[in-house]
Amino acid sequence: MSREQVFNFAPGPSVLPESALKRAQEDLLDYRGSGVSVMEMSHRSKMFQAIFDETKEKFKRAMRVPDTHEVLFLQGGGTLQFAMVPMNLLEGASADYAVTGNFSGKAAKEARKYGSARLAADTTATGHDRIPTQAELRLNPDAKYFYYCSNNTIYGTEWQYVPETPSPLVCDMSSDILTRPVDVSKYGLIFAGAQKNMAPAGLTVVVIDRRLAGKELPITPEIMSYQTMIEKDSMLNTPPCWCIYMLGLVLDWLEEQGGVAAMEQRKHERAQKLYAYLDESGLFAAHALPGSRSEMNVTFRTPSEELDAEFVRGAAERGLLNIKGHRITGGMRASLYNAMPMEGVEALLAYMKEFEVHHHV
Amino acid sequence: MSREQVFNFAPGPSVLPESALKRAQEDLLDYRGSGVSVMEMSHRSKMFQAIFDETKEKFKRAMRVPDTHEVLFLQGGGTLQFAMVPMNLLEGASADYAVTGNFSGKAAKEARKYGSARLAADTTATGHDRIPTQAELRLNPDAKYFYYCSNNTIYGTEWQYVPETPSPLVCDMSSDILTRPVDVSKYGLIFAGAQKNMAPAGLTVVVIDRRLAGKELPITPEIMSYQTMIEKDSMLNTPPCWCIYMLGLVLDWLEEQGGVAAMEQRKHERAQKLYAYLDESGLFAAHALPGSRSEMNVTFRTPSEELDAEFVRGAAERGLLNIKGHRITGGMRASLYNAMPMEGVEALLAYMKEFEVHHHV
Repeated sequence: MSREQVFNFAPGPSVLPESALKRAQEDLLDYRGSGVSVMEMSHRSKMFQAIFDETKEKFKRAMRVPDTHEVLFLQGGGTLQFAMVPMNLLEGASADYAVTGNFSGKAAKEARKYGSARLAADTTATGHDRIPTQAELRLNPDAKYFYYCSNNTIYGTEWQYVPETPSPLVCDMSSDILTRPVDVSKYGLIFAGAQKNMAPAGLTVVVIDRRLAGKELPITPEIMSYQTMIEKDSMLNTPPCWCIYMLGLVLDWLEEQGGVAAMEQRKHERAQKLYAYLDESGLFAAHALPGSRSEMNVTFRTPSEELDAEFVRGAAERGLLNIKGHRITGGMRASLYNAMPMEGVEALLAYMKEFEVHHHV
Repeated sequence: MSREQVFNFAPGPSVLPESALKRAQEDLLDYRGSGVSVMEMSHRSKMFQAIFDETKEKFKRAMRVPDTHEVLFLQGGGTLQFAMVPMNLLEGASADYAVTGNFSGKAAKEARKYGSARLAADTTATGHDRIPTQAELRLNPDAKYFYYCSNNTIYGTEWQYVPETPSPLVCDMSSDILTRPVDVSKYGLIFAGAQKNMAPAGLTVVVIDRRLAGKELPITPEIMSYQTMIEKDSMLNTPPCWCIYMLGLVLDWLEEQGGVAAMEQRKHERAQKLYAYLDESGLFAAHALPGSRSEMNVTFRTPSEELDAEFVRGAAERGLLNIKGHRITGGMRASLYNAMPMEGVEALLAYMKEFEVHHHV
């Protein structure tokens, strides 16, 4: 199939804006008359430094990052942050973790290697079908930080409020960063793997309040010290240059489209169309409860695994790619990141309606 | 300048084979009729899994990796390995480090966070102008491993023998992997950042004897456990997919060119041409001593910093890019990785000779 015939609903790595890909293709062998590819540039060259600085500025502009906070371009994905956060911020003491899905659970487990991770909330018992309310959070006033994951890719739930906590907020925004305005000043630390809304896999963006840095445990690898990375402007060693360049191109697109405010409106429109149908459907049912539903990853299923498999197969034949749910949950999942056009949702809906007519139960 | 008018002598990230870049450009928006870019593929998709598996097979073929050893595709560069090696192999005990340059020095320093790093050799006093001989190595029979860096990018020295040691060899081959045949069975662990001879920055390749894995300290982050990464075939989390794909394309080129044996012959020819001239020149002098000279990074200088600067400026005007030495050493450095054609060396030599005529001292 050609690019025009498919919509890619992959949960990450996932669809990127076509304008960014086209620009990358044009630049690939020769970046704007330099005679070299971005992939061949020394990270210490003026040319790459300009790409790096501009990308950082674009990101700060898009997220309105205040001067109190530093933006870092790191490697290792969210998984490395699961260890890096407690190594740097926990000081061997205790932090509060809200476990609302797979990745926050992994983060809490990892933190216990370096101190105590108290569960401020845990939705495991109900299959992570909802986000706890503010009143339900069991908060420790002495916690070094409060950790949560704002969007749960696997279960399809999303925090629709910013928790109020006595300790600094640490948030894994891997799957919904740059999809809505965020008041960064409310956060001690935000991190996100790039491969959903920002860039190809291999880049992790960290936004950190400088006051939280510099308290790492002695066993912290140098490359995992936020303080060192702030001092070295993310260039203690060679950064993932190509991904940083791609992030810059994606941010150009985002800015042209109207920034995070426009992204928020679109994500709302995309998701609401799907949920409205799911709530009416006699065949499909949404996994997440109203009030907790993700606008990034819409999870749903039919009454049987056989029908789910048939649906996924038929979708692929129509160019609706990667609609299969995560292996933990089964069912289906439509990931609707920034670069997913409304036409993708409409094509999916048309297929769901057709499928329901033929499989009414 | 256009691509045809430049030779890129950058120390890494550095020049890549043009055929690999062209293939990447063709595939960029639509990977071989899939309708999606490699940058947009789920790492769990069959399509990406095939790219991953094929790249690993090509690498194993190129390096003749025996069945006792596992190949891992990781993130974080050599710098993360400086911590990962002792976290996994040191068991809080002692290892031998040969410090012959900047990066082996950093590795030894990092290891001391997790145990003892004895100096089996240290060439700091003479400005790292040579590699110690086998007889000079002070070996501890109880060391958990012997660590060295086979090529010192900054100083331009290269180990021209494989050390014989009572403990397993751990080697940082970041700047000369895939440039000569290596008997992998002699090594406990080999690692290399991709950005010199393999792929764009953001990928680290590790080759590990499986028997060395599984002894990590309890404070080891999950993503930094070799054992876990072996069990998960490098996919505990999202790997740096684009870099892995690019490595596959570079390995296609390498295989077409005759593999590592052909690379070794070419690197020898390229470097010998430069060193022969340097040893005759009345203006330029090589930094590294005969018997220790790197065939990857040829370091040299004129008698004055002013002339060095003039030489570097003139080189850039002629399209001989990134010839300036590292900020630690000053002077000049010509990095001659696999993808550097002989024409690049000839163009550099022609300019050096011309410069010498005009600046004879």
